[in-house]
Amino acid sequence: MNSPYSHRSIRKYKSDPVPKSLLRDIIEAGTRASNTGNMQLYSVVITSDKKNKAKLAEYNFNQPSIVQSPVALTICADVHRFCRWCEFRKAEEGYHTLLWLLSSVLDASLFSQNICLAAEEKGLGICYLGSTLYNLQKVIDLLKLPDGVLPITTITMGYPAESPELTDRLPVKAVIHEETYKEYSPEIIDELYKGIESLVASKGFVEENHVENLAQVYTDVRYTKKDSIEYSKKMLKILHKQGFDI
Amino acid sequence: MNSPYSHRSIRKYKSDPVPKSLLRDIIEAGTRASNTGNMQLYSVVITSDKKNKAKLAEYNFNQPSIVQSPVALTICADVHRFCRWCEFRKAEEGYHTLLWLLSSVLDASLFSQNICLAAEEKGLGICYLGSTLYNLQKVIDLLKLPDGVLPITTITMGYPAESPELTDRLPVKAVIHEETYKEYSPEIIDELYKGIESLVASKGFVEENHVENLAQVYTDVRYTKKDSIEYSKKMLKILHKQGFDI
Repeated sequence: MNSPYSHRSIRKYKSDPVPKSLLRDIIEAGTRASNTGNMQLYSVVITSDKKNKAKLAEYNFNQPSIVQSPVALTICADVHRFCRWCEFRKAEEGYHTLLWLLSSVLDASLFSQNICLAAEEKGLGICYLGSTLYNLQKVIDLLKLPDGVLPITTITMGYPAESPELTDRLPVKAVIHEETYKEYSPEIIDELYKGIESLVASKGFVEENHVENLAQVYTDVRYTKKDSIEYSKKMLKILHKQGFDI
Repeated sequence: MNSPYSHRSIRKYKSDPVPKSLLRDIIEAGTRASNTGNMQLYSVVITSDKKNKAKLAEYNFNQPSIVQSPVALTICADVHRFCRWCEFRKAEEGYHTLLWLLSSVLDASLFSQNICLAAEEKGLGICYLGSTLYNLQKVIDLLKLPDGVLPITTITMGYPAESPELTDRLPVKAVIHEETYKEYSPEIIDELYKGIESLVASKGFVEENHVENLAQVYTDVRYTKKDSIEYSKKMLKILHKQGFDI
């Protein structure tokens, strides 16, 4: 559990708390990650209060790992703090834009991944919850996030009470391009995806969802076009509400 | 050089190449990072050809580290490969949206940071170039990136020929919020930024740019409102060109 090669998402935790000083130390590792112009365009909100965890779980499609973990960290892209500094120094900021939204999402993600690797080095387990992006307004309200701040993911953290296998991935060559991007032909796609498509679990998903293949499990069940359009519209409104001019 | 606590950006490299098998191994560590629904919405384009490196350097404001490093990796948010798979499986994709742009930027960033930490574990040095976001179209053309693919950052990599000190950061408490986001008062901002503001280097930047304080170095010189607006407009157009419906 101590290298970038060995990550497993942990969804069951022991009841032992994560000591505050350890958590601070781990978050400090996050701040050592590279970031845009040393502006550190990120924040983390720690949720350890039981009631708040219950609400955060509710806003993450009731994923049980939030309630069950001793602590949850919501990682935020954050231009707010930097802009407050500018405001108090009579410096005219221009950071509520698309360019800086993407820069801050990048900064916050690198921060986040360093936190996770530092946590795993200390024997802790973590799990990323992608559901935060689907429940933005509720999370923003619960955590009282001001303008310029967007929650991008929530991480549950604690001492592991399970030790799952590595998850299957595409062969590494699937993601590598030499000098220029090589287009994926039907034959190459067949070759790259045959491993994942032939897993017993994948075949089970296809069967129980009455679709023809694994790709349709994604498009027809898990991540539909209808949801993509609906949540993107909501997201754009929320970005405007958070002060981003996009 | 082997933990999330000890990253230094390396801008001077030895001439030794990064062996291909080692690079592949490091990128494989990238694929072990968490990602959205195991969709792996990222790619990396490796630039090691001299002419391509020279062009990539030009498109990154002539940062010398690109030409000087044996290899540069352009990290891309990528829904293209996944959508090709959907296309060949008669599955109707809906992933060229804002929601999936942000999801793929998140995926690509976690992938990227795992690559960097794996590289540092192997004794390599890396440097992130934020300039990619400012020169998107040129990078897209050079690397022949198709629809659904957005380059988000370029990493230079090689064996270090320098060993710089850790960069200064805000005190870790600056980025931590307990349960809810605490607003930054003028007094708190003073306290958090006094370290960085009082550095000799910072005072030098203020003086040579004839501004009143370090915040104004950012807003008036490095990252101006004018540039932010201009590059955001360009970025939105490029996103549309890359097929994202935003």
